[in-house]
Amino acid sequence: ASPSKPIRATLFPGDGIGPEIAESVKQVFNAAEVPIEWEEHFVADTVDPRTESFLTWESLESVRRNRVGLKGPMATPIGKGHRSLNLTLRKELGLYANVRPCHSLSGYKTRYDNVNLVTIRENTEGEYSGLEHQVVRGVVESLKIITRQASLRVAEYAFHYAKANGRQRVSAIHKANIMRKTDGLFLKCCREVAEKYPEITYEEVIIDNCCMMLVKNPSLFDVLVMPNLYGDIISDLCAGLIGGLGLTPSCNIGEGGIALAEAVHGSAPDIAGKNLANPTALLLSSVMMLRHLNLNDKADRIHNAILNTIAEGKYRTVDLGGTASTSDFTKALCDHL
Amino acid sequence: ASPSKPIRATLFPGDGIGPEIAESVKQVFNAAEVPIEWEEHFVADTVDPRTESFLTWESLESVRRNRVGLKGPMATPIGKGHRSLNLTLRKELGLYANVRPCHSLSGYKTRYDNVNLVTIRENTEGEYSGLEHQVVRGVVESLKIITRQASLRVAEYAFHYAKANGRQRVSAIHKANIMRKTDGLFLKCCREVAEKYPEITYEEVIIDNCCMMLVKNPSLFDVLVMPNLYGDIISDLCAGLIGGLGLTPSCNIGEGGIALAEAVHGSAPDIAGKNLANPTALLLSSVMMLRHLNLNDKADRIHNAILNTIAEGKYRTVDLGGTASTSDFTKALCDHL
Ligand SMILES: CC(C)[C@H](C(=O)O)[C@@H](O)C(=O)O
Ligand SMILES: CC(C)[C@H](C(=O)O)[C@@H](O)C(=O)O
Repeated sequence: ASPSKPIRATLFPGDGIGPEIAESVKQVFNAAEVPIEWEEHFVADTVDPRTESFLTWESLESVRRNRVGLKGPMATPIGKGHRSLNLTLRKELGLYANVRPCHSLSGYKTRYDNVNLVTIRENTEGEYSGLEHQVVRGVVESLKIITRQASLRVAEYAFHYAKANGRQRVSAIHKANIMRKTDGLFLKCCREVAEKYPEITYEEVIIDNCCMMLVKNPSLFDVLVMPNLYGDIISDLCAGLIGGLGLTPSCNIGEGGIALAEAVHGSAPDIAGKNLANPTALLLSSVMMLRHLNLNDKADRIHNAILNTIAEGKYRTVDLGGTASTSDFTKALCDHL
Repeated sequence: ASPSKPIRATLFPGDGIGPEIAESVKQVFNAAEVPIEWEEHFVADTVDPRTESFLTWESLESVRRNRVGLKGPMATPIGKGHRSLNLTLRKELGLYANVRPCHSLSGYKTRYDNVNLVTIRENTEGEYSGLEHQVVRGVVESLKIITRQASLRVAEYAFHYAKANGRQRVSAIHKANIMRKTDGLFLKCCREVAEKYPEITYEEVIIDNCCMMLVKNPSLFDVLVMPNLYGDIISDLCAGLIGGLGLTPSCNIGEGGIALAEAVHGSAPDIAGKNLANPTALLLSSVMMLRHLNLNDKADRIHNAILNTIAEGKYRTVDLGGTASTSDFTKALCDHL
């Protein structure tokens, strides 16, 4: 990308602390002279009938057109007659894989050193089908749907990712000893894809055992791929190992090569507007977006600046036990660039 | 129970290392003069048509009659035409609640100190319904079933347990933001029961967040109650916090007041018969059985002897980094009695 022709990317600052941490990303991108032009879209005050949610049709069109975006936290307003914002995005943009690298941050100590793994979560089906009903009074059922298409797609992505990132091993996480057909199909698809990547070690780990191994010794894992709900659970567990969602980036990969990077923490309404939020997860997510765009120099520069600022420990936000404001931290980071 | 009239209890030594660790329990019970007479039942070589599994009808009748039992690991033989041993037991004996206390063992250091929580898992329904089918080629579905009856029953048990054991708080773990009807019904039942226990704090925690909190700070939790699959996952995660399934007891509570205590680790065929297995999980489970029988003096004595033997650290089995054999450990424990 030549500096004269910036890349357009959609930015959803989101709610609560979203605008503040998005501002931090904008400043950092300016300081690093990243050739990105943001198209900003906010969550609307009214439901857009075309999306059945508080997301406007235009905002979805913006991502479809730009194929790349960054998203802050979005709290779905309570009430009927509209869909969850996050689920609408996943569905409408076909965001089939949620990728979350989980690295220990030197400078922020937890019980675990040297965590270095990546969870890749199927993001469109499974227990998130939304198909539920009452069979008789006092008996309800919900449907978990697993398809060959979605399983192959996420498995392909996981192996592709592993290879492209020099990773050695992919572990498929499942409960096929109980859900033989659904999780069994998921595993079958993973095995099919694994055969095409003989250089990558493939293994299957039952989810309960996986969680036990993760808390005992996370370095047993490298890339993990799994159905939707297991991914939801395990990616948060892994975030916990390195300090929480405030430090964990994520990126959603969608149909037609869309990449929507996303801070997966909440909108923290209690501290919103107070210049107290930690922008790290959104910043690290923006780095994932830059890598997706092959802007690797910019990505490396910003990534190093984030890591160094945290490692230095002088400017630490309140959630990490420090006293720095969002703008103090951002300024320190820009000084590192 | 007068010493002249022993209590009959069913013992399933199980497979692999099962017989060795069951032998350890028998020796310890002898040394502590526990007034229990075991009815031993082994996994059969052929499928019993009345149970459709390798469990004999007589063995199930034994538990039904005695109302109390202890079970080692049982590996279900691979093949068709029979049911999983563990699932058959749960179904046939109506084992509706799996209770797993999770305590840090002084003398066995992990990354976590002072873990002290109890997971209570609904054990009969949910994702374990076994109802799955292919809808069309490449599309499979499985049914998660939640009933008011089973949810109330396990919630009642959780609050009863909390009160009887002087615990302060019950957390219901769920994903009702996604599975509004199924997990929603589970929560509704928990709330109903919570109202009858105003002295116990009740809270609801989403499973992904729960796993993150558990790895960051397990002391945030006290008693956790949850549907089947979440219980499967979280109870193993919690076991990992204190060192693994080899150190974690469990007890299944069933219809008609049945209690079947159980070591939930595997049968470890690789070390079976070598006098290397760690009997701790089965021993701690046997202590839960004794408490269920109100044999609290015996339970306390054996419990303390187990804790002291481990704390001393002189006789440590191979899984804990030591060199003691199963019988060395057992003997040291008996010496403590
Ligand atoms: C907010 C919620 C619907 C969402 C999910 O369950 O997927 C969240 O936990 C996440 O991981 O993005
Ligand atoms: C062996 C397996 C069927 C079982 C389960 O999933 O319940 C095990 O993980 C357990 O927790 O007892």
